[in-house]
This record gives sequence, C-alpha cells and structure tokens, in this order.
Amino acid sequence: MPKPALSKGTRDFLPTEMTKRQYIFKTLQTIFEKYGFEPIETPAIERLETLDGKYGDEGQKLLYKIRNNKDLTLRLPKLREIHNEFIPEKSELALRYDLTVPMARLVAMHQNELSFPFKRYQMQPVWRADNPQKGRYREFYQCDCDTVGSKSLLNEFELIQIYAEALQTLGLKDFTIKINNRKILQGIANVLQLNEKTSDFINAIDKIDKIGIEGVEKELLEKGISQQQIDVIFPIINQQSSNEETLKSLQKLLQNDEIGTKGIEETKTILEFIKLEPQLNRLITLDLTLARGLDYYTGAIFEVVTHEAKMGSIGGGGRYDKLTEVFGLKNITGVGISFGIERILDVLNELDRFPTHITQSKTQVLITFLDQKAFDYGLKTLQTLRKNNINAEIYPDKANLKKQLDYANNKHIANAIIIGENEMLSNLLVIKNLTTGNQQTLSVEAIIDQFNNQKSA
Amino acid sequence: MPKPALSKGTRDFLPTEMTKRQYIFKTLQTIFEKYGFEPIETPAIERLETLDGKYGDEGQKLLYKIRNNKDLTLRLPKLREIHNEFIPEKSELALRYDLTVPMARLVAMHQNELSFPFKRYQMQPVWRADNPQKGRYREFYQCDCDTVGSKSLLNEFELIQIYAEALQTLGLKDFTIKINNRKILQGIANVLQLNEKTSDFINAIDKIDKIGIEGVEKELLEKGISQQQIDVIFPIINQQSSNEETLKSLQKLLQNDEIGTKGIEETKTILEFIKLEPQLNRLITLDLTLARGLDYYTGAIFEVVTHEAKMGSIGGGGRYDKLTEVFGLKNITGVGISFGIERILDVLNELDRFPTHITQSKTQVLITFLDQKAFDYGLKTLQTLRKNNINAEIYPDKANLKKQLDYANNKHIANAIIIGENEMLSNLLVIKNLTTGNQQTLSVEAIIDQFNNQKSA
Repeated sequence: MPKPALSKGTRDFLPTEMTKRQYIFKTLQTIFEKYGFEPIETPAIERLETLDGKYGDEGQKLLYKIRNNKDLTLRLPKLREIHNEFIPEKSELALRYDLTVPMARLVAMHQNELSFPFKRYQMQPVWRADNPQKGRYREFYQCDCDTVGSKSLLNEFELIQIYAEALQTLGLKDFTIKINNRKILQGIANVLQLNEKTSDFINAIDKIDKIGIEGVEKELLEKGISQQQIDVIFPIINQQSSNEETLKSLQKLLQNDEIGTKGIEETKTILEFIKLEPQLNRLITLDLTLARGLDYYTGAIFEVVTHEAKMGSIGGGGRYDKLTEVFGLKNITGVGISFGIERILDVLNELDRFPTHITQSKTQVLITFLDQKAFDYGLKTLQTLRKNNINAEIYPDKANLKKQLDYANNKHIANAIIIGENEMLSNLLVIKNLTTGNQQTLSVEAIIDQFNNQKSA
Repeated sequence: MPKPALSKGTRDFLPTEMTKRQYIFKTLQTIFEKYGFEPIETPAIERLETLDGKYGDEGQKLLYKIRNNKDLTLRLPKLREIHNEFIPEKSELALRYDLTVPMARLVAMHQNELSFPFKRYQMQPVWRADNPQKGRYREFYQCDCDTVGSKSLLNEFELIQIYAEALQTLGLKDFTIKINNRKILQGIANVLQLNEKTSDFINAIDKIDKIGIEGVEKELLEKGISQQQIDVIFPIINQQSSNEETLKSLQKLLQNDEIGTKGIEETKTILEFIKLEPQLNRLITLDLTLARGLDYYTGAIFEVVTHEAKMGSIGGGGRYDKLTEVFGLKNITGVGISFGIERILDVLNELDRFPTHITQSKTQVLITFLDQKAFDYGLKTLQTLRKNNINAEIYPDKANLKKQLDYANNKHIANAIIIGENEMLSNLLVIKNLTTGNQQTLSVEAIIDQFNNQKSA
C-alpha cells in the first residue's frame, strides 16, 4: 500500500493552523464590512477562455488546466465512449489563478444586478502550477478588496485606511504603505522621451528591491536608455526626502507634461485625505521607485512592506481603468488592494503575535470523570453547560483521569471539571485551570456565570 | 468579443447570496465548536491515486482530473519542452470529490500530530463532473462533522443533537432525523440467508423513497430474492409503529443472529442517550428502510428530511470502521454527519426563513450630503462612526441626494444620515430609517450610542 501523500505544493490545515487562519480571515472581514465592502465568491473552475492570455507569458504557463473529460451533452453511453476516445474536446476549463480577473468577469456579467460603486471583498484559494518552495505553494488563499465604478480618490484613502487598521489589528507594529502613481511614471517617461521604451523603464525600476540601483541601471542601459537619461531619473525617483519635497521636485520636472501633472495632483489629493487621520502619516511613504509589475494599473499604486520580518511585500494594489473592458464593459474604473494572507500568517507566526485565545481550544472546558457513575453525572452537567452556550466536551470513552487530561492538554483546552464521589454528593464541582493549576469548587451555575463573564470581558 | 460566461454547473455568489451563505456557515461553525469540534481544511487538488477507486463506478466517472501539465522537476526549458510534447506524464491530479476521503487521508498522514478522539468539522467546495440540473451543481460546498477514534455511542447522540440544534437554529421547524443501523440490516440479511445477495438487498431498500415499496419488491425479485423472503422483510422494516415496538419485533426476528442483536443493542443505547434531551424524541424516527447507499457504513446510519419543502434528504451520515484502512491506518472507527448545505440554503430561501438582519446590508448607515461642504463635514462624521466600530459609508463621488439614496436602497442599507447647512451649523444630524421613513435629529454621540445598543440587543 503506498503511503498517503499530498500533491506537491499543497497543504493540509490541522485545527491549530486553521484557528489562526480563521482568526485572520474574520479580522479582515470585520474591517472590510466596517468600510462597506461586501463579500462575493466566484467558482474555482472557469472557462479557459476567461483566463487565457490574462496573466502574461509567465502566468499562462502556470494555469492549471482541466480536461472537460465528459461531454455531458452526449447522453448515450455508447456515443460518449466513442467520442471520449477519438474526438479531442473543444471546451477546456482552468482553475482560478487570481481573484482579479474572475471579479472583472463577474462585474461585466452581473453589471445590471450590482449597484455601483461596487465595493467587494473576496477571500478564496487560487492555483498556480509553480515550482513549490519555502513559502510558495501551488494552492494558496488570496484576499482582495476593491471598489469598482468610482473615480473618487477617497477610495484610495479608504483602502490605505483598511491596510493600516487591518495590519495593526492583526498585531503588526512596524510597516510602511508605499504609494506611487503610474501617471507619474508615465510622465517621467514622457519627459525623457522614452516612448516605446516606457514599459521597459517601468519593468526595470520594479526590480529595484531585487537587483538594486546598479542592477536597474544596467538593465536600463541594455534596453537602450541613455546614461544621460538615467542621470536625470535616479536623483528624482530615488530621493529620500519627505513626501512633500519629493512632490515639489517632481512638479518642476513634469510641469509641461499633462499626464505626469495629473499623477501629481492625484497623489496630492490622496495625501490631503490622509490628513483626516494624522496617525496614518508616519505609515505612508511616497516611493517613486514603486512600479508594480502588473500591466493593468493606470493611477495610484500601493505596496505594503513589514520591517519586522524578512519578507517581501505583504500586500499591494492600485487603480485600473480597463480591467472589465476585455469582458465587454467599458469605461469602468476601479481600485483595489490585496492582502498577502499566507505571508501575513507566516510573519505573525514568526513574531508570535497571535492573541492567547487563538492558541487555545475553542472548547472552554473538558468534563472528566472517575467512574461510570461520574460519567453519567458529567453527561448531565455537559448538557447544562451547552444549553448555556458554553463550549464543552466530555471524553466519550472509558478512560482513566490521566488519559482524559492528556486529551485536554493536547487539544489546548483551558479548563477541566473533575467529577468524583464528593462532587456528586455536594453538587459542587471542582474546576481546574489547566494552565495555572488553580482549582475552584463551584456550583454549575457559578461556573456558567464565570464563563459568561469571561466571554463578555 | 465573446460574452463573458461561467463554466457550466458553476455559480457566482453576489453579496446578497454570500451573506446568507456566510450566515449558515457561521451558525454551523458556532454549534460545531460548542460540541468540541475543530476545523480542518484539505487541498482542492489531491493526487489521483488518493481518490481513485474510492467512489464506485459512478463516482469515478465524475472525478475532475487535472493534467500535471508541467513536470516542474525538469528545470531546463529545452528538456521540459521535449518531455511535454512526447512523454505522457505519470503523475495525475484530481479535484476533491467529497470531504470524507481527504479527511481519512489526513487522519492517516497526521495520526501522530492529532489527539484522538479527533473531532473535526470541514466546510469546503467539492467538484463533480455531473450533468448540471436544477439544484445540482458541478461545484458545491459540503459540510461535514466527524468524530474519529472513539467507539462510544455518545458520539452518535452528539451528532444527532448537532443536527437538531443546527437545523432549529437555522429556522427549520418540521424535520425528522431518521436512524437505522447497518448491523440490523446485516442481521435481517443473515436471518433470511441472503448471503452474497446482502448488498443487493441493501441497495434495493435504499431506493424506497424513489421507487416505492413495489419498485423495491420488483428489484428484489429480479435479484433472485424470493417472494417468501420479501414477505418476511417488509412487515418488519416497513412498520409504522413506535421506535420501541419496532425494536421489539426486530429483537424477536434477530434473536439468534449475533450481528443483528448487536445492531439492536447499539440502537437502544443511542435511544437511551436521547432520553437526556426529551425534546429530541419527537424528531427521531427509527426507520428500518433507511440504508444509505455508501459502502463504508458499518453501524448507526442517519438521514434528515424536512417536511416543509419538497426536497430529498438535507443531511446524512453514519459510523464507519475501515475508512482509514486504505491509507494504512487500521482499527480506527469513526462516525460523522454531513449537512446538505446547498439544499438547506434552497429550503430556507423557499420558506423565507432568513432573519431580517441577514437580508440587510452590514453597512449600518450611509452618510449622504447636499454639497461639497457637506461632503467634507460628512467625511469627518464617517471617521468618527468607524472609530466607534459602526459600519458606515459615504457615497464617494459627486451625486445628488436621490442617487445617494438609491445606492443605499439597492444595497439594503438600513439608515441614512443626511447632512446639509442646518446640520453643519447645529452639529445635530438627521438620521433616517430607510425602511420606516422615521427621522431623528441627534448628535453623533447619540447616534453611536443608538447603534451600539442595537448591537448588544
């Protein structure tokens, strides 16, 4: 018999891990809903034509394709058999690669059922036939939050607020939300007359974190951008000054470029909104080297980096103007952010920032018993506790006390009620905190009160 | 440009639908955790060998297979290209078909990390390349709850309690939890000396809901079971008497059969446990025609039917003894139930049983404005509300009041704050209940108090 195994690059989540994941998802959900975002889900299986050609050459290779292995319109088994064997099937399917393209398809398909601006969040797994390595999986969750159908830059501000509130609520203390604007980058390219080399320029500076200034410079030279042009670019985009000063020097450079000036205006407006929440200021950095590789961005772009762990970006996003166009819905602008949920989980694990209650069982108390009579008594106690919405268990099989307490400890159950002869006679129960070892002797009503007070605390 | 479309048999879930789905999942989760069950997740993609041959001939045909279209151990592009073209790949993948087999694989793989009895719940989508029709999808959620590694029949009782509590909490009023025991069916087969025809017998009576008594009788005759045998079977399994009387007549029939007697004993024990919760009694029916098609059941079996809507079973389950054996883990018994989540959703929709708050937006209030000055004022109000954990929005673009209120109505937002000249001067805000039309003029603090009182109510 072969040993049971997982498919490469996939994971099982056992309860301890799941509890942490549920906590992160729930925290994000609560904050998304505070800001008026609503949930959607799209199917894992999409028609190949929906995803085909949407993710560039590299992405295309990583699509998981499914054979539509039964043509189910052919009802006759005989016909089906023949066809399965000899006729290649037309309709192919693929697994969801990200949440953005399916969202665009959904918005285009359901445009008449949705009210715009459409504020949606989505937390679902995606699949990529990538080479698995530490921290990179073939099946992993994405978590996106977008406002579609509103030009207002208030949306950019709201998404920045959501980043800040969500990451702080999850326990991260030191992170930067980098912002930039594609129109500014376009403006720089225009001023330097990069023309058809514009996307080479954007793609090159996107790699600054990976290959450094020298690497980018080398790549730009290789792409035919002159040393002179480079000497104009770098002092501006790589300056370490305040957001205001950076904008001032940009303004001079881009004064005669319409699109660049628009990018500056947009950035100023976003920074103006941020004054509504002065404590956000220290988290925001205007970083002109931020480019975000994806083609579809046309305005503000974001990226979040943590300084507490060695970990690339833990989130990113931006504004796009033509995402739904390929699905037939024109003139719809949108802006969205993504949370790198798997990385955030890794960081929180590394920094040990999960709240204590997350690392304990949801079961508040295990009822333990010394003999069959105590088991029968304990069963009644169990019903009473559950009726009062206390999460409780009893060890279901015959077992000595040690085995029962081992079960509680393995499952990280915080308390045990121990039932023996005295307890049954007095109707007073011994409840033991399994972490501190503290014991109390209480009526079942008093135990219920104690748990309920803990809950509301 | 082709119209955007979904793959056949799959669905998008828009916010209204998602909110209902989240409510059902959350309700079940809360109850599962009250009874000590913990969450797990397994990957959507499993190795084909894990799923192969586990679902019978019919199931096998419905497996979605994925081509492992890149052998990622071959790093050199050249080599990879050649291999992709000419060498058929060994390793194939398939999509999760149910939650039971992956759970068995997980338990076998992680047996040393788990504490037994292992009480798990799991709510994830599964995929079946079935012929889509009303209420039947190719991608749908399953929701399972199992206790693995405990022989105690207390587990059966707990699962019955969970069925009752969950379905009642969700608003169902009239349903029956049918129970039976595979050992009783085996005992009947033994007494009638059906021998190798036993599984024909079990498969035939499993269809009684679909094809009626006559249909089953016809099928049994066709399978070579005699009219005489049939005349013994039906009066017993099809009697409409109380659970106690049914057991009594069975006891007589099976008195010399060891396994049948064991089945009766188990059923009695479960009914004994149910006396702990007398109000459960009216929900439970011992139904000897209940067979549950799946091969792996060996003890108690369950099925839930609602009498409020025309809908087959909305849940089922049972005890199994050898589920993990195929993955190399012997002598592990378990018992589990499944919630037919998609059907339950359909029933609740049909009966209109969702609580009012589910059909309203999570956004508690939309801030509306008459001009730019009011918008700026409203923005500050918005920050204040959100800081106090009130879910609030402002319409982000320039728009007249009608457009803003249309947005609120389309999104089912319950309240609107209307900001104009007077409100800015007085610092008193008009808040309007958009359902009743009632208006109040209140300070922002009073509005916050009111929302917080609603929340804790």
